[in-house]
Amino acid sequence: MEARGIHHVGLAVADLDEAVQTYEKLFGGRVEHRERVEEQGVEAASVRVGSSRVELLAALGDDTPVGRFLAKRGPGMHHVAYEVDDIRSALRDLEAEGAELIDAEPRHGMFGLEVAFVHPDSVHGVLTEVVSG
Amino acid sequence: MEARGIHHVGLAVADLDEAVQTYEKLFGGRVEHRERVEEQGVEAASVRVGSSRVELLAALGDDTPVGRFLAKRGPGMHHVAYEVDDIRSALRDLEAEGAELIDAEPRHGMFGLEVAFVHPDSVHGVLTEVVSG
Repeated sequence: MEARGIHHVGLAVADLDEAVQTYEKLFGGRVEHRERVEEQGVEAASVRVGSSRVELLAALGDDTPVGRFLAKRGPGMHHVAYEVDDIRSALRDLEAEGAELIDAEPRHGMFGLEVAFVHPDSVHGVLTEVVSG
Repeated sequence: MEARGIHHVGLAVADLDEAVQTYEKLFGGRVEHRERVEEQGVEAASVRVGSSRVELLAALGDDTPVGRFLAKRGPGMHHVAYEVDDIRSALRDLEAEGAELIDAEPRHGMFGLEVAFVHPDSVHGVLTEVVSG
């Protein structure tokens, strides 16, 4: 599979407003989307930084995926997402190469994207997402 | 300061050859540079993934920055690097905004780049690099 490039880097943060301000002030970031997804326990901001994008993720509670990540590792890098042309075809290719998929089928992610995660054990400890718009 | 975008994502790996193969196989990565820097205790590969770039970092020993990172956190995401037009001007802007700089002056990084690191405490736990070509 040929990824198009990095769609975004996902960063777990303790305070979403503060983090957004930091990316605005330090790197000229501009918020393109912001979304609160109760059932995933997350509030997220998609921030453009030049031609790239960071996804800032704040937990809505301790017993949520991002909340547990923050409790264990603290704020910091959470995942890398690659943009692909066809997410179903990408997942078939990844499976054929022996990658362990967290999501065997694409699911609706935030900001209207189709997403699927690959297990970090298959990518040298990096939680990796594939995304199509 | 307005960053141009993400120059690369730095990933700490246990085995550089295996990691290069993984990025080739899973995401269509192509190695553009590979360099061993004894005095920094690191061997690194710069891998293009579509229009983006990941920097795979392997330690040359346990008592090196990447070796200590691997011992503490295991393989995974290490830093995010933003490309800037003028690294000296970027460092002045970052300092004016109150960011704590690890490198107050740019230094020669790998692959012929001028680089400087910002302390993770100033960027919500993310070790952040600025880079100019």
